Amino acid sequence: MIKTIWWQDNQVHLIDQKALPTAEKYVVCRDYREVIRCIRDLTIRGAPAIGVATALGIALGMRALEKDDDADQKFAKICALFAQARPTARNLFWAIERMRGCYERLKGAPLGEKQESLLAEAQAILKEDIANNIRLGAQGQTLFADGTRILTYCNAGALATAGYGTALGVIRAATEAGKKLHVYTCETRPILQGARLTAWELTKEGIATTLITDNMAGVVLNQGKVDCIIVGADRIAANGDVANKVGTYSLAVLARENQVPFYVAAPTATIDLANTAGTDIIIEERHPAEVSTMGGIRVAPTGINVYNPAFDITPHRFITAIITERGIIRPDYQQSLARLMKQ
Amino acid sequence: MIKTIWWQDNQVHLIDQKALPTAEKYVVCRDYREVIRCIRDLTIRGAPAIGVATALGIALGMRALEKDDDADQKFAKICALFAQARPTARNLFWAIERMRGCYERLKGAPLGEKQESLLAEAQAILKEDIANNIRLGAQGQTLFADGTRILTYCNAGALATAGYGTALGVIRAATEAGKKLHVYTCETRPILQGARLTAWELTKEGIATTLITDNMAGVVLNQGKVDCIIVGADRIAANGDVANKVGTYSLAVLARENQVPFYVAAPTATIDLANTAGTDIIIEERHPAEVSTMGGIRVAPTGINVYNPAFDITPHRFITAIITERGIIRPDYQQSLARLMKQ
Repeated sequence: MIKTIWWQDNQVHLIDQKALPTAEKYVVCRDYREVIRCIRDLTIRGAPAIGVATALGIALGMRALEKDDDADQKFAKICALFAQARPTARNLFWAIERMRGCYERLKGAPLGEKQESLLAEAQAILKEDIANNIRLGAQGQTLFADGTRILTYCNAGALATAGYGTALGVIRAATEAGKKLHVYTCETRPILQGARLTAWELTKEGIATTLITDNMAGVVLNQGKVDCIIVGADRIAANGDVANKVGTYSLAVLARENQVPFYVAAPTATIDLANTAGTDIIIEERHPAEVSTMGGIRVAPTGINVYNPAFDITPHRFITAIITERGIIRPDYQQSLARLMKQ
Repeated sequence: MIKTIWWQDNQVHLIDQKALPTAEKYVVCRDYREVIRCIRDLTIRGAPAIGVATALGIALGMRALEKDDDADQKFAKICALFAQARPTARNLFWAIERMRGCYERLKGAPLGEKQESLLAEAQAILKEDIANNIRLGAQGQTLFADGTRILTYCNAGALATAGYGTALGVIRAATEAGKKLHVYTCETRPILQGARLTAWELTKEGIATTLITDNMAGVVLNQGKVDCIIVGADRIAANGDVANKVGTYSLAVLARENQVPFYVAAPTATIDLANTAGTDIIIEERHPAEVSTMGGIRVAPTGINVYNPAFDITPHRFITAIITERGIIRPDYQQSLARLMKQ
């Protein structure tokens, strides 16, 4: 089993996703600021994994505290720093809110108890994430018949979560249910999470996969080689609009044009009813060098102007269904999401 | 001015498009088989440039001949080898047909005359290519108002032709007409002709450009940042279906979805009425390593299965207009293309 992130010896351990697939290396964070750096520089990425890293990071930060009278200020500071790590993934803010809820319930408790309870909460978030993904996968896999040819994007796998994965969790569950699938994996520029991470996960699990560049998704769909598309999500608004890795919107448009279902798989922790629509969602822009260089090698003229949004918004009308740990929902999303979040 | 390919001292000279933009190197071919290798390995690419290279290559091959009695056999062999270099670009076969027409008119002439006439024909093809692109650009630029924000794909520039370019020729002509444009350039995986070549050409000309990865075209269109799309073509069928660099189809679908005109710029040498539709066009598949490695560095797990089609087909219903040196044509393409090719 792929282990993405865990707590051990009072440290946060995580697999270095920048080094994959050529090297399987692990990073050990002894300080919460190292966890923030790992989130920022994509050592750990994927909305649910970022959520878990945030929870464990906050627990790690509070553990370093020696005097109780600093606790409230320190907690607020750590949460504020995590909130600035990356703007789009809902799960980061969801994890902060959960840790804050836990902390507030501990008012008046001695520091040691606060530290233990925060760690227990973070560990619970990690365990729940895996359990939710397994539940999500079990429900989602009913959508795939034996022999289904699936296209997926970026990495919504074990590496994007505490384990098992969301979109890849559904694929895992279908495979475990004895269905033979074929997965087209888009490489996902500029960071290549598809080529480097999804292809690695699927290969490791023995699930048949074909790697394509992102611009080949259209021809593969148009040639009738794909029965459905499944992706993860970084944030889902109240009307069902989905923020996910840049390029997701194009796939959704191509799916509609080629009459292929387009599924989004995400835990409810990714849903934010406070965002009324996709237009409310902040889209992170990343450094131009991610596009203009590759493995340190320049691939564009020096001084070139680059636009590098990390995510895009897929309007809800393109989405066939959203698969969550609480069930599969369909349009009208305004209603079905509201109902789901009340459960 | 960018010089892509020329004849000098009985040799074919060409700019090494694999080395750009980090190095401006030139390759000298003393043997026609070197020209074929340059076409195969993408040292020279772009349908019109491949056509010119084929013509000059055939002239170079025949020039090496010493005895007249071998001429017919040698000519047939050289043409057959060029025909196997790459399958999709119409201009390669168009150039062979033109050189063959020239050769057949020379029946009975002494070898030296044949050699001189074939070289003159190849030189004429080169000159006509540039002249046609300038004509094409002059007509096409009328479609762009001052301030137009254009998205282009792959490289349909001076480098893809003997000079000036097709899609970039239109952009050049609009700029020469005093219009200020902004060009979004898609990097164009896996070979990065957009990032390496188009961005280089536009930067050299001082035309404002923003580089994006291919999967960002959707969000850029959806954000209303683009007024129209213009691309080149490798082969155009009788019904107006267009074979072009893989990913073109996706852009055309996204253009339609976002109500943005989608233009194709190509010389009539790219049109083949013998292909009744896009389904008749052979799509070249290239080596998996183009996708699974980048500058020699692995970006996907070893042993990964790769699908690497070099082109795709854009159905004619997505194409707003086709810009040629003989004029701009619009649907119904079956009729307008037939009329155009009779002119």
